[in-house]
Amino acid sequence: MPARCRLFTAALLTGLLIGPMSATASQSPTPTRAQLLAKSRSAEWRTPSPDNLLVMQLPSGRVLIELAPDFAPLHAANIRTLVRQHYFDGLAIVRVQDNFVTQWGDPASDDHGDKSKLRSLGKAHDTVPPEYTWAIDPKLEWTALPDGDVYAPEVGFSEGFPAARDPAIGQEWLTHCYGMVGVGRDNGPETGNGSELYVVIGQAPRRLDRNLAIAGRVLEGMPLLAGLPRGEGEMGFYTKPSQRTPIESVRLASELPAAQRPAIQVLRTDSPTFAALLDAQRHRHDAFYKVSSGKVGLCSVDVPVRRQVPPPATR
Amino acid sequence: MPARCRLFTAALLTGLLIGPMSATASQSPTPTRAQLLAKSRSAEWRTPSPDNLLVMQLPSGRVLIELAPDFAPLHAANIRTLVRQHYFDGLAIVRVQDNFVTQWGDPASDDHGDKSKLRSLGKAHDTVPPEYTWAIDPKLEWTALPDGDVYAPEVGFSEGFPAARDPAIGQEWLTHCYGMVGVGRDNGPETGNGSELYVVIGQAPRRLDRNLAIAGRVLEGMPLLAGLPRGEGEMGFYTKPSQRTPIESVRLASELPAAQRPAIQVLRTDSPTFAALLDAQRHRHDAFYKVSSGKVGLCSVDVPVRRQVPPPATR
Repeated sequence: MPARCRLFTAALLTGLLIGPMSATASQSPTPTRAQLLAKSRSAEWRTPSPDNLLVMQLPSGRVLIELAPDFAPLHAANIRTLVRQHYFDGLAIVRVQDNFVTQWGDPASDDHGDKSKLRSLGKAHDTVPPEYTWAIDPKLEWTALPDGDVYAPEVGFSEGFPAARDPAIGQEWLTHCYGMVGVGRDNGPETGNGSELYVVIGQAPRRLDRNLAIAGRVLEGMPLLAGLPRGEGEMGFYTKPSQRTPIESVRLASELPAAQRPAIQVLRTDSPTFAALLDAQRHRHDAFYKVSSGKVGLCSVDVPVRRQVPPPATR
Repeated sequence: MPARCRLFTAALLTGLLIGPMSATASQSPTPTRAQLLAKSRSAEWRTPSPDNLLVMQLPSGRVLIELAPDFAPLHAANIRTLVRQHYFDGLAIVRVQDNFVTQWGDPASDDHGDKSKLRSLGKAHDTVPPEYTWAIDPKLEWTALPDGDVYAPEVGFSEGFPAARDPAIGQEWLTHCYGMVGVGRDNGPETGNGSELYVVIGQAPRRLDRNLAIAGRVLEGMPLLAGLPRGEGEMGFYTKPSQRTPIESVRLASELPAAQRPAIQVLRTDSPTFAALLDAQRHRHDAFYKVSSGKVGLCSVDVPVRRQVPPPATR
């Protein structure tokens, strides 16, 4: 029996399967992500401030979220206040809408929830100014992505987050890419306070850009948030309390004893290695890929993280 | 205690929550998807041929896939041959890679599988010509999306499927949007035969366009495929057989007794209602949305389906 088809990313995995069947055997294959990251220098990685790093413990594991106080300082501060009060402990993931968002917060705030059981926000604010867009700050990193975008005049990365700009009006905003964490709100633009958060789990819903505050990005644990059964109620809300995923705790890394703080680093988006990764994504040629895309879309870029800091490189 | 923030798509749900807080109260709100679809005419919907409709039964429910023989006729024919032999019955979902694909087929074809247990393809072909791109066929519907695209010179919809074109070379291809079903292969371009299929479950991996054959689109049941636990092995493969989701059966609708055939229809992508939906997505203004996106990306469009054929409209 002839060899049966393998699973379609064999070459993505090894990146080196150049063989007699390759159409590109005469070229050297594009380096893989792992190969490029292995060659990165220590200085190309940054360690998120433990005051900006949320550690959310679910029964299935840990989710790490980096807050974005450079862009949404008031929301980040309110979320920190909530977390320091242990506001989220014992709350739940209440909504998973397919190809859209996973959302967590107080089940009592649900349309069908018992409003008399709403948890107090304590010292946190009940309303927060929108922070949907802001004046471009020249002091912050901006690494433009020259490949174009359907939704914004200019896109790129700022301090590790995907972002868009309209230079004509000098405004900037974070974009609703996979893994970005936004602040749920009611109709009033100031009604989002961080007690309900959502994360994008499907095709980037860019129509939400400039309509909601983005408070951060999931650095680790997306499979735990995206791989949940979808809620069968309207907008993906779970219809039975037993379907919700309980949140055991949410802590700031800075609240944890030093030994328990997650050792996570994020590749700097203004680093040469990040640029090399984008280029490899645009111009991939190897045994598997017959044509390269030539382009990379903003939300197709997964800014690398690493969990452990390796020993200093030899150079 | 003041009202707490509701969950962020309250207005998306009702579409009519115009109240004193709305910034756009002076305008009438953009009609919702449900409202636009409710006004559609019967002639705007098409019923997929039962020879092109796959019914995949999982323990959790039913998945409906429309094959795309207009674009991948050889792959569609091979998949039909496999299905008629009940090839997929008792096979499994073997891989769920976060923000990428869910894939099903013969677990024995896995890298760690027992090759001696591979199921025979029977009368189906072991290799199939690529069908990655093709000459534009002027006889087929083409509804251009004028909003632009990062990856292709021109994008739009053809016979209900998202597609891209390069008019300079007269070529067309289907695009890897959410819910599109592709044909897994090994490195050789002809090694995909339809016995391993995958569906896009995250941000559209457009780098795969023109590198793999797209055989169809999931019309119903995406939550059953996307809401699965992610595999912990490399590339999202499950490491334990017990983690796989068994496939009870896959049938062509045409094989089923008429009474059991799914009554599903797809909105024609050259219909006025489809155009109105795109426009509503671009220019949404209502109590919730503060600014509209002005644009709609190809893979942000979910071509509507309906499960039951309503009685004839009054006009």
